[in-house]
Amino acid sequence: MINPFDDTYFMKKALQEAELAYEKGEIPVGAIIVVKDRVIARTHNLTELLNDVTAHAEMQAITSAANFLGGKYLLNCTLYVTLEPCQMCAGALYWSQISKVVYGASDIQRGFTTMGTQLHPKTEVVGGVLAEEASALMKRFFIEKRNLN
Amino acid sequence: MINPFDDTYFMKKALQEAELAYEKGEIPVGAIIVVKDRVIARTHNLTELLNDVTAHAEMQAITSAANFLGGKYLLNCTLYVTLEPCQMCAGALYWSQISKVVYGASDIQRGFTTMGTQLHPKTEVVGGVLAEEASALMKRFFIEKRNLN
Repeated sequence: MINPFDDTYFMKKALQEAELAYEKGEIPVGAIIVVKDRVIARTHNLTELLNDVTAHAEMQAITSAANFLGGKYLLNCTLYVTLEPCQMCAGALYWSQISKVVYGASDIQRGFTTMGTQLHPKTEVVGGVLAEEASALMKRFFIEKRNLN
Repeated sequence: MINPFDDTYFMKKALQEAELAYEKGEIPVGAIIVVKDRVIARTHNLTELLNDVTAHAEMQAITSAANFLGGKYLLNCTLYVTLEPCQMCAGALYWSQISKVVYGASDIQRGFTTMGTQLHPKTEVVGGVLAEEASALMKRFFIEKRNLN
């Protein structure tokens, strides 16, 4: 049987969030958190608007999901994020003991795999889902930014 | 000339914050951020109260200081924190480009030095300031917790 609620389905929703960040002039990264095929958090990067380096999409998603669940551990939850998490976000995911992390484009420079940040041993990781779409949006953003300055 | 506003002076203020966390049943970690000998943020761990793994003292201090300064980069700022920052907090400090980080007790298991988290190259780090006091408070907390359960 085909399950329509696969990683690609949910990553599309994270990409929609990244588009919202893009429209606001934020580095376009979006995230959602899903539990039993239900989206319980939708967030996008707001570091410029909030003037706050901690306002990455993933950080907000973790806080939002914990608030929804009424508990700080994100057991049975999956995070979908359009860009590979950084040290900070991976460190937060470590504490959350989240079950699964799915990311889109790799971040060769500052992604957690390059930086050597440890996720929780319980956490399954999948990379590269709709990576081209996420990457294209990032490139479009930085090209436009450069042309404006 | 003696400068009363040294690292020990400010770490005492961070310890006062840790005491507040202790009184609330939170793992007792406190932080302050200082710019030109002026305290612009005072925070303590609130992960239990907020049900949020991201509510470490340092994370709140970064957000609070950026809010005070009206900018997300913590240039000319010093963070004083009673316990060595974890991966998440060190990752956030990396993005903030903070000038100096002073911590009290080392966290051998989950501190950023053990975990290999990178701070910004601009950031000066000093460890071990009032380490015994910070460590004693943590020990008192965990002994009491154990006796309650």
